[in-house]
Amino acid sequence: MSNERRSRIPVGVLGATGVVGQRFLALLSGHPWFRVAAVAGSERRQGQRYRDAVPWRLPDSPPEEEVLNLPVLSPDADFEVPLLFSALPSAVAERVEPLLAGRGHVVCSNASSHRMAADVPLLIPEVNPDHLALLEAQRAGRDWSGLLLTNPNCSTIQLALALKPLADRFGLRRVQVTTLQALSGAGYPGVASYDLLDNAIPYIGEEEEKIEREVPKILGQYQESAIHPADFGLSAQCTRVPVREGHLACVSVELGKTASGVTGEDVLRAWSEFTALPQRLGLPTAPAAPILVRTEPDRPQPLLDRDAGGGMSVVVGRLRECPILDFKFVVLGHNTIRGAAGASILNAELLYKRGLL
Amino acid sequence: MSNERRSRIPVGVLGATGVVGQRFLALLSGHPWFRVAAVAGSERRQGQRYRDAVPWRLPDSPPEEEVLNLPVLSPDADFEVPLLFSALPSAVAERVEPLLAGRGHVVCSNASSHRMAADVPLLIPEVNPDHLALLEAQRAGRDWSGLLLTNPNCSTIQLALALKPLADRFGLRRVQVTTLQALSGAGYPGVASYDLLDNAIPYIGEEEEKIEREVPKILGQYQESAIHPADFGLSAQCTRVPVREGHLACVSVELGKTASGVTGEDVLRAWSEFTALPQRLGLPTAPAAPILVRTEPDRPQPLLDRDAGGGMSVVVGRLRECPILDFKFVVLGHNTIRGAAGASILNAELLYKRGLL
Amino acid sequence: MSNERRSRIPVGVLGATGVVGQRFLALLSGHPWFRVAAVAGSERRQGQRYRDAVPWRLPDSPPEEEVLNLPVLSPDADFEVPLLFSALPSAVAERVEPLLAGRGHVVCSNASSHRMAADVPLLIPEVNPDHLALLEAQRAGRDWSGLLLTNPNCSTIQLALALKPLADRFGLRRVQVTTLQALSGAGYPGVASYDLLDNAIPYIGEEEEKIEREVPKILGQYQESAIHPADFGLSAQCTRVPVREGHLACVSVELGKTASGVTGEDVLRAWSEFTALPQRLGLPTAPAAPILVRTEPDRPQPLLDRDAGGGMSVVVGRLRECPILDFKFVVLGHNTIRGAAGASILNAELLYKRGLL
Amino acid sequence: MSNERRSRIPVGVLGATGVVGQRFLALLSGHPWFRVAAVAGSERRQGQRYRDAVPWRLPDSPPEEEVLNLPVLSPDADFEVPLLFSALPSAVAERVEPLLAGRGHVVCSNASSHRMAADVPLLIPEVNPDHLALLEAQRAGRDWSGLLLTNPNCSTIQLALALKPLADRFGLRRVQVTTLQALSGAGYPGVASYDLLDNAIPYIGEEEEKIEREVPKILGQYQESAIHPADFGLSAQCTRVPVREGHLACVSVELGKTASGVTGEDVLRAWSEFTALPQRLGLPTAPAAPILVRTEPDRPQPLLDRDAGGGMSVVVGRLRECPILDFKFVVLGHNTIRGAAGASILNAELLYKRGLL
Repeated sequence: MSNERRSRIPVGVLGATGVVGQRFLALLSGHPWFRVAAVAGSERRQGQRYRDAVPWRLPDSPPEEEVLNLPVLSPDADFEVPLLFSALPSAVAERVEPLLAGRGHVVCSNASSHRMAADVPLLIPEVNPDHLALLEAQRAGRDWSGLLLTNPNCSTIQLALALKPLADRFGLRRVQVTTLQALSGAGYPGVASYDLLDNAIPYIGEEEEKIEREVPKILGQYQESAIHPADFGLSAQCTRVPVREGHLACVSVELGKTASGVTGEDVLRAWSEFTALPQRLGLPTAPAAPILVRTEPDRPQPLLDRDAGGGMSVVVGRLRECPILDFKFVVLGHNTIRGAAGASILNAELLYKRGLL
Repeated sequence: MSNERRSRIPVGVLGATGVVGQRFLALLSGHPWFRVAAVAGSERRQGQRYRDAVPWRLPDSPPEEEVLNLPVLSPDADFEVPLLFSALPSAVAERVEPLLAGRGHVVCSNASSHRMAADVPLLIPEVNPDHLALLEAQRAGRDWSGLLLTNPNCSTIQLALALKPLADRFGLRRVQVTTLQALSGAGYPGVASYDLLDNAIPYIGEEEEKIEREVPKILGQYQESAIHPADFGLSAQCTRVPVREGHLACVSVELGKTASGVTGEDVLRAWSEFTALPQRLGLPTAPAAPILVRTEPDRPQPLLDRDAGGGMSVVVGRLRECPILDFKFVVLGHNTIRGAAGASILNAELLYKRGLL
Repeated sequence: MSNERRSRIPVGVLGATGVVGQRFLALLSGHPWFRVAAVAGSERRQGQRYRDAVPWRLPDSPPEEEVLNLPVLSPDADFEVPLLFSALPSAVAERVEPLLAGRGHVVCSNASSHRMAADVPLLIPEVNPDHLALLEAQRAGRDWSGLLLTNPNCSTIQLALALKPLADRFGLRRVQVTTLQALSGAGYPGVASYDLLDNAIPYIGEEEEKIEREVPKILGQYQESAIHPADFGLSAQCTRVPVREGHLACVSVELGKTASGVTGEDVLRAWSEFTALPQRLGLPTAPAAPILVRTEPDRPQPLLDRDAGGGMSVVVGRLRECPILDFKFVVLGHNTIRGAAGASILNAELLYKRGLL
Repeated sequence: MSNERRSRIPVGVLGATGVVGQRFLALLSGHPWFRVAAVAGSERRQGQRYRDAVPWRLPDSPPEEEVLNLPVLSPDADFEVPLLFSALPSAVAERVEPLLAGRGHVVCSNASSHRMAADVPLLIPEVNPDHLALLEAQRAGRDWSGLLLTNPNCSTIQLALALKPLADRFGLRRVQVTTLQALSGAGYPGVASYDLLDNAIPYIGEEEEKIEREVPKILGQYQESAIHPADFGLSAQCTRVPVREGHLACVSVELGKTASGVTGEDVLRAWSEFTALPQRLGLPTAPAAPILVRTEPDRPQPLLDRDAGGGMSVVVGRLRECPILDFKFVVLGHNTIRGAAGASILNAELLYKRGLL
């Protein structure tokens, strides 16, 4: 191992063999602060070297030899790394993540199991970095020597990011969203091609519920050691479409009461001027622009826009007035980067910068 | 020609070489009342026999030999048939359809050009058959010896059908719809595979406008020789997805003021009990059930449900409460059958039964 | 049950919940001679009614109520039907099919397990109906009161059918085939959309071997109670493509030594004149033309030609001279109808007509 | 313009608005030796700035501002750049390329029009760099002050590359190839999604002919100012599949007479040891390995392997014995990079290094 590599913080990736797990490895490959030093997977993979456990399924290059040669451990193994990224299935995460936090690890999780726990921050560094203060309550209440931090559901993140500047400037009263979600969101093997070729499926288990409960928490206020969810109406419909990566969401919003007279120009400006803590701190995974505005009539599109900002920017477009609420628009995000692995890594970067790692 | 065939009413199909044109020919093949006796197409096809003008692109069997051997005429030719179906591009339909109605033809058009004209019925036989009364105003005002009747846009029809029983029983205040539309809706060649493979496109030119203006006309009231559009809010977002046939729409509705206490059961009953004039008249193209309710969590799906009722039923499902309006649900329709050619043919059948042909 | 239905021969379908199993049920729905009276599936389905065990995944209508309400049995249950169709996975078929034949059932199997057994006919009724004579050897040697009959692999069948008239008229020396196979051939869930969207996979486990060993057996000669495989070279390459149904095969053939001077016309005539026993006997599932010749430069295509002859015709086209062998051409067949369930049913129909049932 | 940029050789791209044209711009963006200083397109684009003429359709980032702001010129404009890359349609290239070469430009063309001309090299720098000697005959015979150099058809290049080491070490007698070609090879708009979704098309106009005549020229010998085509049999079948980028080819080869005893190991070694002039010269676009060998049973695959070596490596795999020729294998190449724009650029780099620019 090179000296440079040795100097980086060793991290583990749990659920490393799945779609999101591989995305973690790809994004951490060459990360300036972290290096993958442990991987964990399901029972039948354990004991094998990563390279033999599963084929590399991303079009991106596979990770370094050091990583490919790591043995696949159990997710509740005795890890010797301070930081663990979790892409575990929720049933496993439910049990294992508190255990690992208890043992002193910082766990940055993409799993849904603990997102709504009162003392677990559901973090998007550009949106609610102040929610990190919850970790004090967590430490106080949990008797853990480590900590547990979560990132939201893939389709939640891009929606929350697009709503944040609107909530800040104009307030929000009601939001209606219909998503067209990529198949990678279903993991591997995920959706059978038999079910999806020449088809769209208007149902993704628990997805609408996740969006409807997570966005208010994220946009909520931290006060007296607790998050007070934002008070606005939110209705989601979720569909699966034959797209590899990139969730598209069609959104209608009603702005806050005091927002009368807000024009489309105002909304576009709110988005394009939006910048936040990760950009100011120069976090390695933070995109230059968290929100990119496209003005062509037919953008954003998953194929053309999902890789914007290295997959970490969300792209908005098609802003127009809504006949029943105030405005309608489209927002796109890369679901396994900004919506999953990249989100967790950005969270960890903020922790590191804040000295919490 | 067989005697049986000879006894049927000869009809012409304008724009017969396109996707909807071929669908007209397929549906009219073996129709009990009508037989195709003339076809018209664009200039470069004219003069050729239909069989040589374009390849047959539908998986369904091609039409009868008599039809394949018809010469392709100009859309403003001197047709010797009383009834003309129009699948013309709107720019051509704009000019040609009035001209043909003027010459005495009954024109049943799928084109958008004249749908919003004050004296042209925008007809869905199950929804607004009383709007046929507009034809009197048309006759009075136009100095035509024929008449012009239109069917709505593909995504309008399925939405209007699903809303009709709700409007009747509960009233409507606001409707939000996001569509996932099949590629056949774009005609041929339509959307390039280069643009659509592994992609979804959140834009279909003029589609949202069509939905937003057509549905209120269809659900409007005929009074004093005019249609008074229904008064409710309607907002549409339209997307194109890699599906061959079958538009999916995710809908949220707020019911009328007096509809408090309406339950999901009530809504489901409104749909499943819905039957209408075409069913009572036994029109050949009318499906047994105009609205089919599916109760599985993941239905309707384009691949599995588009052919319900021979492509003439719309299929609803996923009814659940909406956190910001009253209910949300999904509706699917076959866009080139119920949403285009089949719609026009059903219109013509109603005219015939009413003695207007 | 109607009298008409009662008068039909009761049959069972083993592996009834999979892609081919559902195809069996769809094809047997309304069959004039057979009616489904028993279904079997894997352990976790057993005990449930068919309608509850799996969703119906075919765009075709689901089978009759009587069938949907059948309990899912174990494949080695004590069936009370004389005829069993098997769509079992080969590992199960290996063990269960002989057992069922031993118990007196006529087993028509689509599984690969016993296809190459010396006393088991590998039957395509249009190609080698004389191979049924093997059943005498089977009876003599096996001590079964029933019998076991197999149909070939999906891609084998269409190739063997296309080659049969050439073999008969001109002889065969060498055949090279590259297939583009539909995803339904992999069963359900089969190929992940994650693996297949925007991709083609140049590998299908054991498929090339099956083609290379099955075709010579099918085209072989029955002599002295045994099949003597046809003596010609055969090389196969198999790929999976994002197509729902319909295998496409690009073939090059070198004809027999004595075939010098054979022209493309001769080959086309051999195909279009080809008719066989099932056509003469009028078997219900036999297509009018076992081989359809298309002359357009770009046909056959899976989407447009797979349903020819109700999915039971194979379609050939693009015949041209081959610079290194004699001729090259393309052949298409519906892999789950002619290539699987329809093949087994046609076999059973021949047995019935021959009094072997 | 930066000094660095100014110091690079200005080049023009003809046919810059198409799929291959955009690929040229993407690959030349940041090229160390060349900078795009002129773009030409079809009549209706001319006069517009590039950014307004067509949308950028590649998922890759669009080119630099300087390029986006270039006016779209006519392909026979008076260019002020020494080097022109041509992605022109063949009908235009037929007329324009000689004219431009006559005016003193070095034309590196991807068009098919002049590939088979006796005095025009059909160059793959790794395969037949000695064919550049033909340029002397070209200069002598044409009275041009510039020169014209072509690269082969997309599916030809990857096949020729895979065959080259085999031809060199073992000789070639017969080659059979069936291709599965990506839709980007058809340009834009190219194949309608209506034709390609859930389908494969066993026909690409003139493609088989191109392969069959180009490969022998490329593998031919330069002698006495002429190319003597390699003497081996070659038969191609070409199909179009729903894949964005990356042509897959299934190949069978019979090696030379003296190659008896050649093992699979020998073939694999021939490929993996293959390196050539561009690698030795360190040409900027040359991949480290022109041929990559994958040993997994199911590789190469377009989705996973097309970007190998920046899209400039071809990837071979699935080597096994062929029952009728000697070996069969699969080869994949990125059709718009190694098979088109990258090929032309590599050609130009070789010219530059040889002082011919």
